[in-house]
Amino acid sequence: MKIGIIGLGKMGGNITRRLIRAGHEVVAWDPVIEAVTAVGNEGAQVASSVEDMVSKLAAPRAVWVMVPSGQPTEETLNKLAQLLTAGDTVIDGGNSNYKDSMRRAGKLAQKGIALLDTGTSGGVWGLNEGYCLMVGGTSEAFKALEPIFQALAPSQEHGYAHVGASGAGHFVKMVHNGIEYGLMQAYAEGFELMKAKDDFGLDMAQIAELWRYGSVVRSWLLDLGAAALKDNPELDNLASWVADSGEGRWTVTEAVDLGVPLPVITLALQSRFRSRQEQPFSGKLLAALRQQFGGHAVREAKP
Amino acid sequence: MKIGIIGLGKMGGNITRRLIRAGHEVVAWDPVIEAVTAVGNEGAQVASSVEDMVSKLAAPRAVWVMVPSGQPTEETLNKLAQLLTAGDTVIDGGNSNYKDSMRRAGKLAQKGIALLDTGTSGGVWGLNEGYCLMVGGTSEAFKALEPIFQALAPSQEHGYAHVGASGAGHFVKMVHNGIEYGLMQAYAEGFELMKAKDDFGLDMAQIAELWRYGSVVRSWLLDLGAAALKDNPELDNLASWVADSGEGRWTVTEAVDLGVPLPVITLALQSRFRSRQEQPFSGKLLAALRQQFGGHAVREAKP
Amino acid sequence: MKIGIIGLGKMGGNITRRLIRAGHEVVAWDPVIEAVTAVGNEGAQVASSVEDMVSKLAAPRAVWVMVPSGQPTEETLNKLAQLLTAGDTVIDGGNSNYKDSMRRAGKLAQKGIALLDTGTSGGVWGLNEGYCLMVGGTSEAFKALEPIFQALAPSQEHGYAHVGASGAGHFVKMVHNGIEYGLMQAYAEGFELMKAKDDFGLDMAQIAELWRYGSVVRSWLLDLGAAALKDNPELDNLASWVADSGEGRWTVTEAVDLGVPLPVITLALQSRFRSRQEQPFSGKLLAALRQQFGGHAVREAKP
Amino acid sequence: MKIGIIGLGKMGGNITRRLIRAGHEVVAWDPVIEAVTAVGNEGAQVASSVEDMVSKLAAPRAVWVMVPSGQPTEETLNKLAQLLTAGDTVIDGGNSNYKDSMRRAGKLAQKGIALLDTGTSGGVWGLNEGYCLMVGGTSEAFKALEPIFQALAPSQEHGYAHVGASGAGHFVKMVHNGIEYGLMQAYAEGFELMKAKDDFGLDMAQIAELWRYGSVVRSWLLDLGAAALKDNPELDNLASWVADSGEGRWTVTEAVDLGVPLPVITLALQSRFRSRQEQPFSGKLLAALRQQFGGHAVREAKP
Repeated sequence: MKIGIIGLGKMGGNITRRLIRAGHEVVAWDPVIEAVTAVGNEGAQVASSVEDMVSKLAAPRAVWVMVPSGQPTEETLNKLAQLLTAGDTVIDGGNSNYKDSMRRAGKLAQKGIALLDTGTSGGVWGLNEGYCLMVGGTSEAFKALEPIFQALAPSQEHGYAHVGASGAGHFVKMVHNGIEYGLMQAYAEGFELMKAKDDFGLDMAQIAELWRYGSVVRSWLLDLGAAALKDNPELDNLASWVADSGEGRWTVTEAVDLGVPLPVITLALQSRFRSRQEQPFSGKLLAALRQQFGGHAVREAKP
Repeated sequence: MKIGIIGLGKMGGNITRRLIRAGHEVVAWDPVIEAVTAVGNEGAQVASSVEDMVSKLAAPRAVWVMVPSGQPTEETLNKLAQLLTAGDTVIDGGNSNYKDSMRRAGKLAQKGIALLDTGTSGGVWGLNEGYCLMVGGTSEAFKALEPIFQALAPSQEHGYAHVGASGAGHFVKMVHNGIEYGLMQAYAEGFELMKAKDDFGLDMAQIAELWRYGSVVRSWLLDLGAAALKDNPELDNLASWVADSGEGRWTVTEAVDLGVPLPVITLALQSRFRSRQEQPFSGKLLAALRQQFGGHAVREAKP
Repeated sequence: MKIGIIGLGKMGGNITRRLIRAGHEVVAWDPVIEAVTAVGNEGAQVASSVEDMVSKLAAPRAVWVMVPSGQPTEETLNKLAQLLTAGDTVIDGGNSNYKDSMRRAGKLAQKGIALLDTGTSGGVWGLNEGYCLMVGGTSEAFKALEPIFQALAPSQEHGYAHVGASGAGHFVKMVHNGIEYGLMQAYAEGFELMKAKDDFGLDMAQIAELWRYGSVVRSWLLDLGAAALKDNPELDNLASWVADSGEGRWTVTEAVDLGVPLPVITLALQSRFRSRQEQPFSGKLLAALRQQFGGHAVREAKP
Repeated sequence: MKIGIIGLGKMGGNITRRLIRAGHEVVAWDPVIEAVTAVGNEGAQVASSVEDMVSKLAAPRAVWVMVPSGQPTEETLNKLAQLLTAGDTVIDGGNSNYKDSMRRAGKLAQKGIALLDTGTSGGVWGLNEGYCLMVGGTSEAFKALEPIFQALAPSQEHGYAHVGASGAGHFVKMVHNGIEYGLMQAYAEGFELMKAKDDFGLDMAQIAELWRYGSVVRSWLLDLGAAALKDNPELDNLASWVADSGEGRWTVTEAVDLGVPLPVITLALQSRFRSRQEQPFSGKLLAALRQQFGGHAVREAKP
């Protein structure tokens, strides 16, 4: 098949490569000219603008959008709404909020354009291992693009699915990422506890590697953890500072809206928040309270 | 009544004073001679040793022990077991683990000596406001010492009670302190959130003071918080570093043993643990994992 | 002063009564005619409609709105926007979301009408004990109505304050309620643990009453808990089913937006969610997983 | 090699079989005669008692103990201490508390007998997939038995390791299980949230299967979850009732002792506790408190 791709960052660039390797034709565009040239050298047809990309596709067209969520995705979809025509399909492979995807799908549908909100997991490893694709939208649009999904997934049979109507793909991806936060935090806590148990002088890298085989906790994340610890057993050049990219927040907020308790996923998110605080006011107030009622000693802030 | 007191620190010294003010006779001892002299100047009969103190009491004797929990209490009770005789009573007013109190009561009972495990709350304010006393042990021993408890409590009618058999007093005090952790953390989180909401430029001291009157969250701890914030609205000389004194840990461990979920009390304790970590390994591992799967940027540890 | 009141439920009715007792003139309206008649019998001037109420006030008018948050408040404020004139003031004493209050204040300001978003705490006890009032809006509007706030607060000096610009009042009330969730859950957990410790046969009502005097955990909520347990020590006609009224959810969502960890307040909210679940899917999946990997026994669902 | 095995339950029976398949000689004993006969039919040499088993081994002997932790393990090791001689080795493959293992190793060492505390993960799948073995004790004892560990592990190179001195094996296994609790709960919460989102009508079995390929959350536990959901998509014959087997509790208690915050692992454990409560007192008290301060409606307990 022939497909356009907008956005050639870490994810979009590799998606382009994996499609080309599978024999598909890709017309690629990105505002960063070097990114376009790079995939051009690897077999992509290059476009000089979104308009140029659309002109190089024949109806019914398919365009994969792989740009940051929020404003960049909104603007790209608005532009495509003007350039594409009835029967065309846009795939939003980014981490959009599922409510945005529902709204956007409704808007595009008015012009007869389908939107497939496609949660895409796999990170930088997807190029070689394949991506997990969670697709929301109409069955028709999904089926028409199945060869693309099969090429990107780990195999033709596994790792992609049409999970529901518009929004369902990004909803499932959102929950996927919430789970990911919980899994990561569970491992992190276990290793922290082992590290704190000085008596045994445990070797973190050895244990991570050991658990990869036969244990109940074996997983792909553990594989990555073992690789990280093998390279750098003490992780001593790293700050204990953990970013979050939005989906974890949406998962927690969604659970609050639905009245569903998610203690582990929520605390995993909050642990990341905490990792970014230096001297939170809450701790100062607790110290002040202890001093008030018990005359307990406090520590002075470092100058 | 006449009573001996061992341990004249922040708590024991004030207990001595409050008893003297109520007209009781107190024979006081502490290894720190200045502490003994101080209460001696305020009307206490001073003792030069535990032996001397016991000799200055007439059977049936009562001795209030107010020393740090663990080894110091263990040793003091062992010593009293040798010096006291059947019919005497020991009050352990410290924060002993209730299991220790049960064991010690059993041991003392073999000699006919009663142990009243007496959880004592009120902190440095108890001298003037009175203490809350949660007493475990036999009814007989409790009743015999009721005048003492009435003098220490906020009033003759309120603030002291015989809550059950040996161990029950310290068990109830343990849970009391667990609740205290949860209450303190709830306030601390609320103030932290208000502090984080820059837009409104809220005045922490004003709000703490405001809530003291008529609000659902008014409490003695809030009174203390308002006092602390009035003196120092930004708490800016204080480190966000919070100690814990053991009872919170015992509460959580007890809940684990009984299979009871205590999310709030547990997280309040863990927040204190977290306040004392600088660069926990868990956060480094999370950062390393994100880098592995997503190529996400990490922060380098500060040199 | 003379003031109009819309909404004569549990809160609005008592606010009317407390203002009358303080010597203020109140023109009252509610869609439920019996509610209007009731306060009429207690000295309020009754209105037959919002229009009628407004006509019975002289500019600059003041109208206190005490209706459910969300749509009812929105509609009432829209109606008042049409009836009132520049220089008038509306007080929203309900539990509106602070973002709504900011939006509404902006809209009313266009007509020269002031909105004081006034978080009101105290529940059914406010009639006699006074309310805690957290007021957002302009200083001018606040000062003009200070006699009203003084009459409603526990005293003329305490329990009411202008905490900031529009929205600040409802923001502070929102956080207040979040803290309230945490405080309540801390007590609830402590009593659950004591209840679970069968060995001691502790008396919940006795302990709640005991802690009210001199203890670090004494508070108004504990006073209420002691009253509830005195009436019904086992609480055995009550279901373990806990509602939530929105502010807790907003507090947690706000914290997620600001990236602030609130473990205790969040877990308190989630414990309420959990209390309303009967057989959550998560527990079934955990049981199924244990069966899969360990061959562990599961329990069949009750028919 | 030749080895004795005590305990032929789900784990011990399969360990026996896997060793036999690998060409080792096994002398097997269990108090349940049918279990002994079963492995006898598959090539094990049967013993009629522990004494008989020991007599059928030549020094230096090795005996794998695979019985329930606590009293059964204690008694078995005490018995072996009497029957074995210096130079022999006992492997405790069960889920003993690491502190017990340290104590027992010390006791056995006095007789010159080595104890290898060997955390064994893999569940009922270990027979075919191999076990993950975390071994504590002396290097000498570990090396001497390496052929046994290699036969039980998934491969000769991977899935077994000497992680430290006595106790380290069971400590690492304890933390492993704590992590397992966290991982399971993270998945369970994600599926619960998807289940609660009625709008999308998501297919739990489809999504579990989908995520197995290429996603960041792929893991062996997810494989099991997908298998469980494939068989029974609604899990509707299962009660939402989740047991725990002790290691999770020890992990949490250890963290409390070391002052390490483990929010996710702790909440995972507490969620299991909560799954086993029907009408907890905490929820009743919360309902009673809401009724007290706000006059809020409560639900009556079902008769």
